[in-house]
Amino acid sequence: MKPIKVGLLGIGTVGGGTFAVLLRNQEEIARRAGCAITMAMVADKDVDKARAIAGDRVVVTADAYEIVNHPDIDIVVELIGGTGIAKELILKAIANGKHVVTANKALLANHGNEIFAAAQKKDVMVAFEAAVGGGIPIIKALREGLSANRIEWIAAIINGTSNYILTEMRDKGVSFDAALEEAQRLGYAEADPTFDIEGIDAAHKLSIMAAIGFGIPMQFSAVYTEGISKLTREDIRYAEELGYRIKLLAISKRKAQGIELRVHPTLIPERRLIANVEGVMNAVLVMGDAVGQTMYYGAGAGAEPTASAVVADLVDVARMLTADPEHRVPHLAFQPDQLSNTPILPMGQVESAYYLRLRVFDKPGVLADITRILADLGISIEAMVQKEPREGEDWVNLIMLTHLTLEQHVSDAIVKIEALPVVADKVTRIRLEEFN
Amino acid sequence: MKPIKVGLLGIGTVGGGTFAVLLRNQEEIARRAGCAITMAMVADKDVDKARAIAGDRVVVTADAYEIVNHPDIDIVVELIGGTGIAKELILKAIANGKHVVTANKALLANHGNEIFAAAQKKDVMVAFEAAVGGGIPIIKALREGLSANRIEWIAAIINGTSNYILTEMRDKGVSFDAALEEAQRLGYAEADPTFDIEGIDAAHKLSIMAAIGFGIPMQFSAVYTEGISKLTREDIRYAEELGYRIKLLAISKRKAQGIELRVHPTLIPERRLIANVEGVMNAVLVMGDAVGQTMYYGAGAGAEPTASAVVADLVDVARMLTADPEHRVPHLAFQPDQLSNTPILPMGQVESAYYLRLRVFDKPGVLADITRILADLGISIEAMVQKEPREGEDWVNLIMLTHLTLEQHVSDAIVKIEALPVVADKVTRIRLEEFN
Repeated sequence: MKPIKVGLLGIGTVGGGTFAVLLRNQEEIARRAGCAITMAMVADKDVDKARAIAGDRVVVTADAYEIVNHPDIDIVVELIGGTGIAKELILKAIANGKHVVTANKALLANHGNEIFAAAQKKDVMVAFEAAVGGGIPIIKALREGLSANRIEWIAAIINGTSNYILTEMRDKGVSFDAALEEAQRLGYAEADPTFDIEGIDAAHKLSIMAAIGFGIPMQFSAVYTEGISKLTREDIRYAEELGYRIKLLAISKRKAQGIELRVHPTLIPERRLIANVEGVMNAVLVMGDAVGQTMYYGAGAGAEPTASAVVADLVDVARMLTADPEHRVPHLAFQPDQLSNTPILPMGQVESAYYLRLRVFDKPGVLADITRILADLGISIEAMVQKEPREGEDWVNLIMLTHLTLEQHVSDAIVKIEALPVVADKVTRIRLEEFN
Repeated sequence: MKPIKVGLLGIGTVGGGTFAVLLRNQEEIARRAGCAITMAMVADKDVDKARAIAGDRVVVTADAYEIVNHPDIDIVVELIGGTGIAKELILKAIANGKHVVTANKALLANHGNEIFAAAQKKDVMVAFEAAVGGGIPIIKALREGLSANRIEWIAAIINGTSNYILTEMRDKGVSFDAALEEAQRLGYAEADPTFDIEGIDAAHKLSIMAAIGFGIPMQFSAVYTEGISKLTREDIRYAEELGYRIKLLAISKRKAQGIELRVHPTLIPERRLIANVEGVMNAVLVMGDAVGQTMYYGAGAGAEPTASAVVADLVDVARMLTADPEHRVPHLAFQPDQLSNTPILPMGQVESAYYLRLRVFDKPGVLADITRILADLGISIEAMVQKEPREGEDWVNLIMLTHLTLEQHVSDAIVKIEALPVVADKVTRIRLEEFN
């Protein structure tokens, strides 16, 4: 077969990694793919940097349109990021009949339905393994490896920055701010860390995985998103004393009434494998009705891990380049005319167990008032611990773990509990998953 | 597309599971595959049982040749097992131009090269995701998901029976025999457990994974295979005190001189994720030069987990049924004319760290004799612990962890150490991997 010609848009961290991997492993990749895959053109606004990385044998341009319009280019790799120019370029490449590989989760989460529809119309492939979990082949696992299953739920540690911060807070007992600062110093967190620490990045990835798992369109705006910035050392320590770790989980579950889509800090029993995923690593736990629980673990970011997924997509696309479209795996796992309109459940209808921490006045009758409120709302308590008051204080921390209950009931209970004069501050609520 | 017709050979545990999954999830599977996949014929020597499971709408026969020769059958699923009749039937199906899905690791490890060559000649697919790691899509991950990588090593907990026994020995402090008996009682071990506990089953799976990872033919007979039946509670406890867990690992590494292929009990630091894979679960840890370490975890056996892989293969094969063979993923990941003849290293040339336990006479000078032998062979010691002698005994357990060294040097040292009059019994040697 003749060599496949690739045009790269954006030669930053991941672009540079992609360039390096494709060059270093070109022989091994050709032995697998059955044809050479070569980087023919690179576009970057910093042409000098691009030329320094790409060398003389590759056409370098500042104009990305030169690539998406070039007749020799078979596959366009979009590694610019963001939802602006990247979207325009991808749609133009598709319009020109080119296949696309992208790592752009924000773009897919927000505009994926439109992009896939355009690709469908032009009979081209848009591959996006690198958009979720870096080098972990989780899109392939969900879309092909588990195709026999009715997926029941997905729960993922899918943001390395947050997981690094939580690991530091637990290991070293430092505050969120201190851990974030350390993450920024090491390059694990950006100067503006909002997308990572507030769960937005995880929500992007979750909406992609949920679409593939459940055969629904991508619905980023419907994801409930709560980050880790309000977590305290105290809660991490209390959770630990109760045998749990706190992780930022992206969770999607299929329920009779609809589909749950949520990102939030979550207590997980420390014996579960996923509770032991540390530092910047990612892991996706998937429950299928036939296979049971499977888990996929690896580096969720970084130049070469992400490049690993980009180049694997190139091999997949190269292999199917001249095959009839009907032989391809559908973009969202299910045939495009077979997506379902199952509703996304509002957060109040989500069912979970809960960790609740209350600051209460240490006197008789307080516990009775609180447990009465919970009982009236049908919330049953699995465990309760009252911490000793600090020297000279009358206020104590009361920690409760609940059984499974509706989020709305817990929200109602919290309003009532916070209204009690014997309760100080806001109630801390962290959701809890057993993964039995 | 017209429905794909499947013929099933053997409706035992996994066959029954495959039948159930295909039926239960038929709508979901068709929404993914773009066509219906139906079980049209079932062969089993127990026709009554087969009919009871398969119902009236499926042709049931005692003669498996009726299926492999039937013009209506598109894909043959072989779930008979073993290397006798299963091989004949698969070769016949291939000769008849039918695609094959099999879970038969023993057959592939021993005769895979011949089977794949036959399939290649007839332009048919032989899919075997279920042969390794049950429902974990590890073949797909290695063959497609990590195709950008030069694979450096694979290390896997790939035999659930052994892992269950080791988990029981550690958790409950019971002997190997007691744990095996419990495993048999629960149906996790067969009446004759040799294949599982002596590492043969793991070696079958390893030879398949190594072929795919490194682009070499399958070479089961070259795998060094050591099981868990000689492990003692004592060693498991000592390992634990030193911060390690003992797992039966199937390991293959690419070295400058050749490829290591080995199955043996292995100490792993307890902080590593793979050290925490418990009970009958499987996990495969893969090191790729671009992606770093990724891990794949799930149920490695059982009716429906294995069926999950069989049916995923059916979807893959159905999708490519009418596509040109050049578009397919090669059986062993690399194009058939691109396999390499890299030699398999003899065990003496394998490099590893070691846990050594010696029973020595508790008197001055003993340690000097032993450490002199090790030093002369260039073996350096990472840690050493001498256990207190039991009441009234003069013999003590001496435990040493070595740095990386050649297996041959350790074997030579053991011969010399065992010849010392101050050393009682055989030296216990267990290999150790840090997975840094």
